[in-house]
Amino acid sequence: MSASFVEHVEMTGHIVDSLLLPKVLDAILSRGGQYHIETLRLGEKQDDPSFVRIEVRAASPQQLEAILAEVHPHGAVPSQAADCVAVAADVGGAFPDGFYCSTNFRTQLKLGGEWIDVEDQEMDCGILVDPEGGAARCVPMTSVRVGDRIVVGRTGTRVLPPESEMRKHELFEFMASPVSSERPKAVSVREIAHAMRKTRAAGEKVLAVLGPAVVHTGGSELVARLVRDGLINVLFAGNALATHDMEQAFYGTSLGVSLDQGIPTHEGHEHHLRTINTIRRIGGIRAAVEQGKLSSGIMYECVKSSTPFVLAGSIRDDGPLPEVVTDSLVAQDAMRRLLPGVGFCLMVATTLHSIAVGNLLPAAVKVACVDINPATVTKLMDRGSTQTVGIVSDAEPFIRALVAELDRTRGA
Amino acid sequence: MSASFVEHVEMTGHIVDSLLLPKVLDAILSRGGQYHIETLRLGEKQDDPSFVRIEVRAASPQQLEAILAEVHPHGAVPSQAADCVAVAADVGGAFPDGFYCSTNFRTQLKLGGEWIDVEDQEMDCGILVDPEGGAARCVPMTSVRVGDRIVVGRTGTRVLPPESEMRKHELFEFMASPVSSERPKAVSVREIAHAMRKTRAAGEKVLAVLGPAVVHTGGSELVARLVRDGLINVLFAGNALATHDMEQAFYGTSLGVSLDQGIPTHEGHEHHLRTINTIRRIGGIRAAVEQGKLSSGIMYECVKSSTPFVLAGSIRDDGPLPEVVTDSLVAQDAMRRLLPGVGFCLMVATTLHSIAVGNLLPAAVKVACVDINPATVTKLMDRGSTQTVGIVSDAEPFIRALVAELDRTRGA
Amino acid sequence: MSASFVEHVEMTGHIVDSLLLPKVLDAILSRGGQYHIETLRLGEKQDDPSFVRIEVRAASPQQLEAILAEVHPHGAVPSQAADCVAVAADVGGAFPDGFYCSTNFRTQLKLGGEWIDVEDQEMDCGILVDPEGGAARCVPMTSVRVGDRIVVGRTGTRVLPPESEMRKHELFEFMASPVSSERPKAVSVREIAHAMRKTRAAGEKVLAVLGPAVVHTGGSELVARLVRDGLINVLFAGNALATHDMEQAFYGTSLGVSLDQGIPTHEGHEHHLRTINTIRRIGGIRAAVEQGKLSSGIMYECVKSSTPFVLAGSIRDDGPLPEVVTDSLVAQDAMRRLLPGVGFCLMVATTLHSIAVGNLLPAAVKVACVDINPATVTKLMDRGSTQTVGIVSDAEPFIRALVAELDRTRGA
Amino acid sequence: MSASFVEHVEMTGHIVDSLLLPKVLDAILSRGGQYHIETLRLGEKQDDPSFVRIEVRAASPQQLEAILAEVHPHGAVPSQAADCVAVAADVGGAFPDGFYCSTNFRTQLKLGGEWIDVEDQEMDCGILVDPEGGAARCVPMTSVRVGDRIVVGRTGTRVLPPESEMRKHELFEFMASPVSSERPKAVSVREIAHAMRKTRAAGEKVLAVLGPAVVHTGGSELVARLVRDGLINVLFAGNALATHDMEQAFYGTSLGVSLDQGIPTHEGHEHHLRTINTIRRIGGIRAAVEQGKLSSGIMYECVKSSTPFVLAGSIRDDGPLPEVVTDSLVAQDAMRRLLPGVGFCLMVATTLHSIAVGNLLPAAVKVACVDINPATVTKLMDRGSTQTVGIVSDAEPFIRALVAELDRTRGA
Repeated sequence: MSASFVEHVEMTGHIVDSLLLPKVLDAILSRGGQYHIETLRLGEKQDDPSFVRIEVRAASPQQLEAILAEVHPHGAVPSQAADCVAVAADVGGAFPDGFYCSTNFRTQLKLGGEWIDVEDQEMDCGILVDPEGGAARCVPMTSVRVGDRIVVGRTGTRVLPPESEMRKHELFEFMASPVSSERPKAVSVREIAHAMRKTRAAGEKVLAVLGPAVVHTGGSELVARLVRDGLINVLFAGNALATHDMEQAFYGTSLGVSLDQGIPTHEGHEHHLRTINTIRRIGGIRAAVEQGKLSSGIMYECVKSSTPFVLAGSIRDDGPLPEVVTDSLVAQDAMRRLLPGVGFCLMVATTLHSIAVGNLLPAAVKVACVDINPATVTKLMDRGSTQTVGIVSDAEPFIRALVAELDRTRGA
Repeated sequence: MSASFVEHVEMTGHIVDSLLLPKVLDAILSRGGQYHIETLRLGEKQDDPSFVRIEVRAASPQQLEAILAEVHPHGAVPSQAADCVAVAADVGGAFPDGFYCSTNFRTQLKLGGEWIDVEDQEMDCGILVDPEGGAARCVPMTSVRVGDRIVVGRTGTRVLPPESEMRKHELFEFMASPVSSERPKAVSVREIAHAMRKTRAAGEKVLAVLGPAVVHTGGSELVARLVRDGLINVLFAGNALATHDMEQAFYGTSLGVSLDQGIPTHEGHEHHLRTINTIRRIGGIRAAVEQGKLSSGIMYECVKSSTPFVLAGSIRDDGPLPEVVTDSLVAQDAMRRLLPGVGFCLMVATTLHSIAVGNLLPAAVKVACVDINPATVTKLMDRGSTQTVGIVSDAEPFIRALVAELDRTRGA
Repeated sequence: MSASFVEHVEMTGHIVDSLLLPKVLDAILSRGGQYHIETLRLGEKQDDPSFVRIEVRAASPQQLEAILAEVHPHGAVPSQAADCVAVAADVGGAFPDGFYCSTNFRTQLKLGGEWIDVEDQEMDCGILVDPEGGAARCVPMTSVRVGDRIVVGRTGTRVLPPESEMRKHELFEFMASPVSSERPKAVSVREIAHAMRKTRAAGEKVLAVLGPAVVHTGGSELVARLVRDGLINVLFAGNALATHDMEQAFYGTSLGVSLDQGIPTHEGHEHHLRTINTIRRIGGIRAAVEQGKLSSGIMYECVKSSTPFVLAGSIRDDGPLPEVVTDSLVAQDAMRRLLPGVGFCLMVATTLHSIAVGNLLPAAVKVACVDINPATVTKLMDRGSTQTVGIVSDAEPFIRALVAELDRTRGA
Repeated sequence: MSASFVEHVEMTGHIVDSLLLPKVLDAILSRGGQYHIETLRLGEKQDDPSFVRIEVRAASPQQLEAILAEVHPHGAVPSQAADCVAVAADVGGAFPDGFYCSTNFRTQLKLGGEWIDVEDQEMDCGILVDPEGGAARCVPMTSVRVGDRIVVGRTGTRVLPPESEMRKHELFEFMASPVSSERPKAVSVREIAHAMRKTRAAGEKVLAVLGPAVVHTGGSELVARLVRDGLINVLFAGNALATHDMEQAFYGTSLGVSLDQGIPTHEGHEHHLRTINTIRRIGGIRAAVEQGKLSSGIMYECVKSSTPFVLAGSIRDDGPLPEVVTDSLVAQDAMRRLLPGVGFCLMVATTLHSIAVGNLLPAAVKVACVDINPATVTKLMDRGSTQTVGIVSDAEPFIRALVAELDRTRGA
């Protein structure tokens, strides 16, 4: 191979023990390139940052480009970065060709020779540069208007891989561990309880993303307590969770199964539909609480405590309830508006909503995803939600243990 | 117990070997009632219909009502049925209190002393009676307008439990078999191929409901062939299936994973977003085909063969593609419009869309649901889709075997 | 079809609402036969037994035989039963050709014109008739000696299908319910706790069959308490459960994962092997307790309370521990010896041992099988363990809730 | 922290891009130590080996020991290694205290100043040093006799981490990918076919480890062909696989389910027991083939082609067949004897046997594990079988595709 197309890239920080340098070297080889380490100043002790300057060689401009694209999200930037390039959108609701595709990691742009932070960081978006310059933010393609200035290419962009809090003691173990149910559960419970307490103590919000199995397995009252106690501050769910929660309040059943006796009740299969119909007749969940017709459960506590919620619609919904946002784009925007201030996210028993919220969250927000199905946890982590800790467990018993742990540590 | 509240119910047909009579007797006991079999004319041979008249006794009117509600969907109707009762809807977008809640079984109303069939049979709906009388159909609650005449109570309604095609040889085995992957797969393949051929021969349509794992596992070309060969006639899917199918056409990857080599490609995670953006810039899938920019895959074949499809939106969508129906109610209606004429439905690798379509289909349409996750199949069958055969298998290898079987039996 | 081969069969009891008659009629049709109901005396009320006499016709002797074989386990016996036929075993360790294959339902033989109960009822065995007559018991094929009198054919045998305790309120629901995690868990916990208390109150034993995930998920101390409190009276497990339980006692880890911190410890992967080696050096678990070297955990409590246990070997064992029975036939016999007096069986997180024990238990012993993997529960129920209630849940949180419920109801 | 306990370790090779150096640095930090990189000669290009000498400091001798234990399997050895230490076993069937616990990676001992290879490499064993010196091999604890010289401690031992064949293009992707069914299956099929062909071409053996679901799903004939064609050269399985394979040959069923029609046959539940009894009466599988009584299926082809097999017993076995090795230690030894010469191992649909064989195989033997249950694959990889590629797919359709691919590439 004659590898005569060359670029120099640089990296700074804990690049050896954080895996970033090895990943970059591996990526160069993987894409068929060659490297020459021109400078390596290794932090002798673990607190010292390191610096490396690498010459990358490739056999063609395409190959070089492929390598640079691959190493970019690991924080390797060309030695002499120019300003970023933004072009005017030529089509509404779509990015220009060659648009820069965002990750959920903190990202910076070089504008006027200065590196500035991109706001509203979200994966799979484009970056809109403020017309006056000096600011930039992530935007989904549907919100692009003709003339918007959108970043194209990687020039003048850099990703700051997350400060790995895991580095100290569990990085490799975590990476090496496939998703398994055979882990000590009390530890996970304790860690989530701790994260929830810490988040609240820091004045940040705990977001819960819940599927209907939370209610089916009998967890409604437990979650209702967490809302009442201010330990859940934002709720994202669907029509089913809210419906079955209120079905329990009205009929004592969930999808017709008695939560006291565990067996289907007569006409039980109709309960959820009658619940929806009743709420539609009343005019909504809030109206039902105000009129005294709904007096227990998760949705009741949300209304009483003014805990904001988004019920996002789906095609499997019956009804739906009046508060359900049936348009998926509107629902995504409603969720985006509630994300600022969220410091921790607990997802339980929902694939659809977990992945949807995982798409919206910046990497800095830690997530715990609890599902009895390992495939759900795998799917979430497969899609790049690297900040997620996956726990394979059963909804109600897990939440029960979590509530007990939060009780135990109250005031601690 | 003094059981002095009494009603008489009757049943006709293959009520013993079809399990209907035992189910009714069990239901009476289960709800705490008592029965007295007043008349039983048992078909002596298996081709003879039977007739039974049962006295049902309960301790309270509520208990009696509970029993009658329970036995109703098994085809037990009061001996002297009056005309059904319909009242005018008092609130738009909701049924009157006490509305009759539909099943997906064939249902009849007594109107003017005559039993008539309910049209557009669909579970979890109400029944709208034509203002001029003489006709009735299922309607979802969202479509109710003030003044619509909606059936309330069970009076004058009867359910005709499905003609069980399974009765002859597999009824109990089927019921007794939990959902398991440990079944001979070639048999399932053969039966689905047979059902597809038979459906087409009868001039009916085969509906495919597909999740993105069909593409991720490498099944795009196989499904494309089935569309091209006229063996799939309607397609219901989401943004992800269509996106990854076209991502494969454009980049050879699915969610960035090379379908030739099985490993992630550089920048591959961006491919699906670039695919969506490209299609949005072009103006849609149809435009992409017409302009020669899309020339292979499932969506291409649908456009070329004018096979109708509905792409229903969800909150986990990126983009979405221009053809995606982002409002869930509009998407449900779009699917409803394509259901008439469907004789067989093949669902592969999607929980969301399978349950959504299961909600819409009348019980007469046979369904095969293939998913590698037994919980998906269980969930579908748990929700009352009794016409469904669940098969726990892997998308691409299963479809590959299905295509081979359809090839083998071509012209047979 | 000319169906000129005829037999008459009779059934007595709750044959309609228990499903037995419909099953028999269906079986006749399924195998291509015809039936004529000659006599049907239906219990008019639910407490009355019914009686039916059915003429069965088939086109060939083989078909007739097939039908009679199929209806036999549903309690349908020929009208004029002769004495059973037993022949001398001609080969050691094997049954004679045509041997009667046992179920786990209560079974009777006609000997000298009298129906007698078969002892040691166990599925997939033969029936050995006492040389002096008057008694019979199930035996596995490996224990057959030349000359043993073994029952052949179905003549003079009858099965008494189980008194269905479920009949009253949940028969159909239970049958119709596929194995799902989406059930209210507190109800299952309550029912198992109730069954354990009731079993103990009746002077019967509770058998626990446990897999190592009980320890991995953190449940060792909880199970140890149940042993100490006399709520578990027999333990069946394997080398792994005992090893990891003692690994926790010695090192605080399970398979090297710290049960306090949830992360792998240094050299942790060696802990289980060092545990086994230590116990082998000491001479066994009992010796370790006696010498004060093992002082907590499940195995410790078993030794202290003289709770009998069988540790059955498997090919995936390291070591194994001295108490492990490495020969599978010897282990099966060791388990058989501890079964008399067992009134309830709780299986948690083990496919291998659950199925093994399911094979040995008579149908009269109720079983609750808890596993996070629905396939395990399905597999157990697929193999005919009809007395089993399957619960899809996570080991430690489920056991934690069970212990809390048993505490709550202590003395109640 | 005053960290005054010090050791120097060295590493040589592709220690940066293979992750070994970062892992070692991370391990030092994780266990609370400090490092000082005294020498780092980095291979400037990717073909050059690197060398590093690291000063490790810890606060206590215990901590230092913990760190050295942790970095040992990554190939970090003390700068001045002494000869290994072996002591005489004081107890039969157990190692001396402090025994060196083996991995499945290639390992060397320093004996008389020379590094020699350990033979029979197997994880979770001890190392027996030849009495005359100059040779050493792994031994399980049960085979230790009093006086055997067994290595204790890590002094004079070193692990050579595997030559990573994955490094070039997939290392990180592979590590980052949780076990998922959503992968292109044709690629996995192609790679396994290629590995089988390559293994045979190299004169090495292909080992198949199969569970009964291979037969239940209909794969018997396909596997039989692979045996007949010499593409499977050793078979490890259990009583169930062999029984159901022969049940199919005798009755056309598997666990009583017709493989042609997919439904249970009359008396089908007895077929497997009658099969076992028949074979026991004949005297074994080989006798059945020789007497012409068994003439198709996997076991038939094994006998005809003299393909060696081990049928290992388990406590869930009925019968078992005469060839089944009921003692687990004897079965493990029987498997060990057939491992030399095995170059590739295909595991399908068995958790028990897969993990058992994974315990025995050295890391140099590549393994593909196919199971429809992601938890099985996860469990195998969780136990350190790093050479394993896990594929979540369905047994029969996957094997069908594999046979088709092997046909396609015959002679290629």
